[in-house]
Amino acid sequence: MKLVRFCYKDVVASGVLEKDSIIPDNNFRSAISSKIEISDVKLLAPVEPSKIVLVGLNYAEHARELNMEIPLEPVIFIKPPTTVIGPGEKIVYPGSAGRVGYEAELAIVIKDTVKHVTREDALDHVAGYTCLNDVTARDLQKKDGQWTRSKTFDTFSPIGPWIETELDPSDVAIRSYLNGELKQDSRTSDLIFDVPKLIEFISSIMTLLPGDVISTGTPPDVGFMNPGDEIVIEIEGIGRLTNYVVL
Amino acid sequence: MKLVRFCYKDVVASGVLEKDSIIPDNNFRSAISSKIEISDVKLLAPVEPSKIVLVGLNYAEHARELNMEIPLEPVIFIKPPTTVIGPGEKIVYPGSAGRVGYEAELAIVIKDTVKHVTREDALDHVAGYTCLNDVTARDLQKKDGQWTRSKTFDTFSPIGPWIETELDPSDVAIRSYLNGELKQDSRTSDLIFDVPKLIEFISSIMTLLPGDVISTGTPPDVGFMNPGDEIVIEIEGIGRLTNYVVL
Repeated sequence: MKLVRFCYKDVVASGVLEKDSIIPDNNFRSAISSKIEISDVKLLAPVEPSKIVLVGLNYAEHARELNMEIPLEPVIFIKPPTTVIGPGEKIVYPGSAGRVGYEAELAIVIKDTVKHVTREDALDHVAGYTCLNDVTARDLQKKDGQWTRSKTFDTFSPIGPWIETELDPSDVAIRSYLNGELKQDSRTSDLIFDVPKLIEFISSIMTLLPGDVISTGTPPDVGFMNPGDEIVIEIEGIGRLTNYVVL
Repeated sequence: MKLVRFCYKDVVASGVLEKDSIIPDNNFRSAISSKIEISDVKLLAPVEPSKIVLVGLNYAEHARELNMEIPLEPVIFIKPPTTVIGPGEKIVYPGSAGRVGYEAELAIVIKDTVKHVTREDALDHVAGYTCLNDVTARDLQKKDGQWTRSKTFDTFSPIGPWIETELDPSDVAIRSYLNGELKQDSRTSDLIFDVPKLIEFISSIMTLLPGDVISTGTPPDVGFMNPGDEIVIEIEGIGRLTNYVVL
């Protein structure tokens, strides 16, 4: 099932996408329409997380291309809600950044309030999965040592296009395309720390709330984007998240 | 003026503290009482931030004691809302942490939605100031390189006891006391990057929302806490934030 958030005639609502139609949630069905064509709405980021917890260096080949060591435990960092944009929206290139890169990531959407869950029970607390582009100002990441500034500019967390509730995340293709050209091309089976392990690890640190997002890290072959570019994150079984880079 | 959040007879409300009495906000004055003794309420964290943006190494002597270089620009990191506790509440010592430290910090509470503000206009966007203890699992901070895990455990952001709206933050005493013994003892005039500069810098990266918190970094002489300890952060012109460490 594909869960969407959307704006239709200035009303923001949630619903289920079936082929090219959206069935709005009960709350909105009578107020809006029983069925809406997807072409008549603006899709929004499918989730409004209180926090996004991201994992660095979770594909061995990506750690190598950045000349960083493969970690023995997940390395985490946080993007605040102000970074989130939806499908089709614009990634704004900051004036203070020299080089801005894309990172295709499988994102986990948390279903309920979670603390200290075991890896065996972890998947019971997942609402579904979506695509996330962990946009990063690569020069500032290197300069600061700490990754936070380089990753917390407004618009640096495109998320979407929807939440897929049925996905088995253990071995799906994950790709990025810059202006139509294939750039990253990997599989989630190459994750060093898999989805259940990440939920176990992160929930041992902090309480996860409904709608919170864990992003699982990016595969190798990251690269840079420039104003005017179109960037697509594609995950098998979910779909394609398209965004545009502007100054 | 001292702005408080509190719980009184299971109702959560905001108000103004005058000596030992609280005048609840309009919304609650008729429903609760026109005036409540502070001894009859439980004070809560005075703010519910969507994000806490913290600054590392913002006192030269603290950078030296950690053997870290003094940064040329502020180094930032983020604590999510799940880290927040209020005055009198318990800091929970995580099982995965070896050594947990206190860090006394002056915290700025943002008044309105702010992006790209100049240092000249920065103070117009401050609701007030409070105390923050940037609790840190020092061993994990060193092990991870990235600071996020070591600082994002639940309960690791004690904030309070209230928001002081009248403070001039440029030169006030900031201290911490562990079990009554003075540990940190400095002045905010020693900040490398002052309050207006931090608001300018951080708002050039991300939109700040009403109630968001910027914590300005800790002075030297940080140290460790153990279960059973009482830790107090005291800032001249604001007050004292007391918390207790438990397993």
